[in-house]
Amino acid sequence: MSRVGYRGEGHPLRVLFVGFGNVGRTAGEILQDPKRYPGVADLDLATVGLITRTRGCLANPSGVDLPRALEELKTRGRFAPDHPDRTDLDGLTAARTLDYHVLVEISPLNVAARGEPAISHVRAALSRGRHAVTANKGPVAWAHEELCALAEEKGAAFLKETTVMDGVPVFNLAERCMQGCRVLEIEGILNSTSNWVLAGLEEGLSLEAAVRVAQEAGIAEADPSHDLEGWDGAVKVSALANGLMGGELTPDQVERVGMSHLTPETVASARTRGRRFKMLCRAWRDEEGVLKGRSALEELPLDHFYASVSGAGAALTLRTDLLHTIRVVEEGGTSLVPTAYGVLSDLLALRDRMNF
Amino acid sequence: MSRVGYRGEGHPLRVLFVGFGNVGRTAGEILQDPKRYPGVADLDLATVGLITRTRGCLANPSGVDLPRALEELKTRGRFAPDHPDRTDLDGLTAARTLDYHVLVEISPLNVAARGEPAISHVRAALSRGRHAVTANKGPVAWAHEELCALAEEKGAAFLKETTVMDGVPVFNLAERCMQGCRVLEIEGILNSTSNWVLAGLEEGLSLEAAVRVAQEAGIAEADPSHDLEGWDGAVKVSALANGLMGGELTPDQVERVGMSHLTPETVASARTRGRRFKMLCRAWRDEEGVLKGRSALEELPLDHFYASVSGAGAALTLRTDLLHTIRVVEEGGTSLVPTAYGVLSDLLALRDRMNF
Repeated sequence: MSRVGYRGEGHPLRVLFVGFGNVGRTAGEILQDPKRYPGVADLDLATVGLITRTRGCLANPSGVDLPRALEELKTRGRFAPDHPDRTDLDGLTAARTLDYHVLVEISPLNVAARGEPAISHVRAALSRGRHAVTANKGPVAWAHEELCALAEEKGAAFLKETTVMDGVPVFNLAERCMQGCRVLEIEGILNSTSNWVLAGLEEGLSLEAAVRVAQEAGIAEADPSHDLEGWDGAVKVSALANGLMGGELTPDQVERVGMSHLTPETVASARTRGRRFKMLCRAWRDEEGVLKGRSALEELPLDHFYASVSGAGAALTLRTDLLHTIRVVEEGGTSLVPTAYGVLSDLLALRDRMNF
Repeated sequence: MSRVGYRGEGHPLRVLFVGFGNVGRTAGEILQDPKRYPGVADLDLATVGLITRTRGCLANPSGVDLPRALEELKTRGRFAPDHPDRTDLDGLTAARTLDYHVLVEISPLNVAARGEPAISHVRAALSRGRHAVTANKGPVAWAHEELCALAEEKGAAFLKETTVMDGVPVFNLAERCMQGCRVLEIEGILNSTSNWVLAGLEEGLSLEAAVRVAQEAGIAEADPSHDLEGWDGAVKVSALANGLMGGELTPDQVERVGMSHLTPETVASARTRGRRFKMLCRAWRDEEGVLKGRSALEELPLDHFYASVSGAGAALTLRTDLLHTIRVVEEGGTSLVPTAYGVLSDLLALRDRMNF
């Protein structure tokens, strides 16, 4: 583990945030509430840069005033024009030039651009031997192998716990706790928006109404097609397959069957047959050993394990050579604390590895 | 991490096994099948001692001939009288005198003796700065705090992944992957024998018949009362509470409600009310912060998460301050490979920590 100038305990971890939406703000709030969250209270960060596309950008080699920045975002939705740390740096320039230990990539995923510009941000950090934490799924879905190889070459770490199932440590579970096990197959409900919308359809809502309810609850994005057409699942199952099965699967190689055609009538008719729809993801190796993926609407019997994964929940099944089948279920909810925790847990792991 | 004379890569890890029943033999078989289990194939062990109570004892400073020992156990149920490595050492003397890196305690749990003599074996190893891996729940349930303190003082490791849910890495999940999270409550189905017997009762079998079926399948012990009276659950929930919540709960402090009084009629009557019996374990802190435990028969609605945990399966729920509720489910089965893997995964972790 490279130390990239980190001086160890008593010195803050220097962090550059690229993107700073709800997840970033929640992470900041957690760190400012040590009484409620004592376990992360000793994570001493210096935020050397906060680069956003629509809320302004801040940079300060000694660390920007995070409470002030959070307050400005809260009251006016962007950094104040007279903020002393304002800068014109864009994400890529910041990643290439600022002096940080860890780049935290939490900008929104751009599927049309195949994960860019997040991939370039992470690549820029790793090329300089700086660590990278990504909550943006792009780098893991479209450039996993390249970025892992680069990280290894440069002695840097490339962490991604938040990309799938919020902060539930599924990558770390496989990497740190199942050593020697080969993951043979992964399967699960990875997209909570579609799961939430399916619950609405079961209650008799139209697809449009169910989506609206999910949007109002803060679960669905303004454009839900990414979730309902299986793209989000395809991105996540690629990230998992690449991380846990050592592959090179990209989301466009994943077979997709979306759910936009579903009506409450179709759903009710399935129920009369004792069945329920779920969007399921799966990755496996075919007979030639080639990694395959699927993100598709499926009809399951009501007593099937996945049928009981409720609304905003998610579930992941791991089949390995050495363990009984393991299932990890996240009950879910609308809180962003678990997602933000995923980023913080990667930062805690990095701090400790650098302190070793 | 102390290196206790370990010379790193290219040199075998010197292991003393105390106890060598089905789990030990399965671990040996896994190591002899590198083609089927490539992930653990590079675990190079020298077995300096194999101490059993009823099958004889072997010791050899250069490592006993493990394939021969396994063959003898397989063909005659004990080590051959003319085996060149036979010894009269008992477990405690072996732990105190042999030259090993890791003591692996896999002798059967003795509840009446409050976890002895396994606790003394582990204590003897740790006192000498040697690492200890236990699949025996005694040391974790009755002496967790003392042994952890001793391990820390001596720079040794005290690992216990196999004690709960076979090899499913529940301790490592919390310790290595949920850093900064406080575990507020744990809950689950931790005893697969009772779960298997409950399934038999639902099929209309008497308790005695259901137990017999479980025994024939290799799930239940000859004396099933330990499982059916909630003792096994009490031991496991203590181990988990101590490991994950930093407590000092002992199995005798855990409230127990057994299931020996259940009849197929009681179970059928619950089903007519849409309910199902499960043996549930739980640990939490009361208002004064005191750790409490319960291992008890409970009646659950059929659509409850635990109601779907089948036969030989197990489930663990973790509630924390920073994550959504997480559930880990092991589907279960009669194979001992996952249990043996738990021991091997602890040995792999130790080897890598020593190589650091």
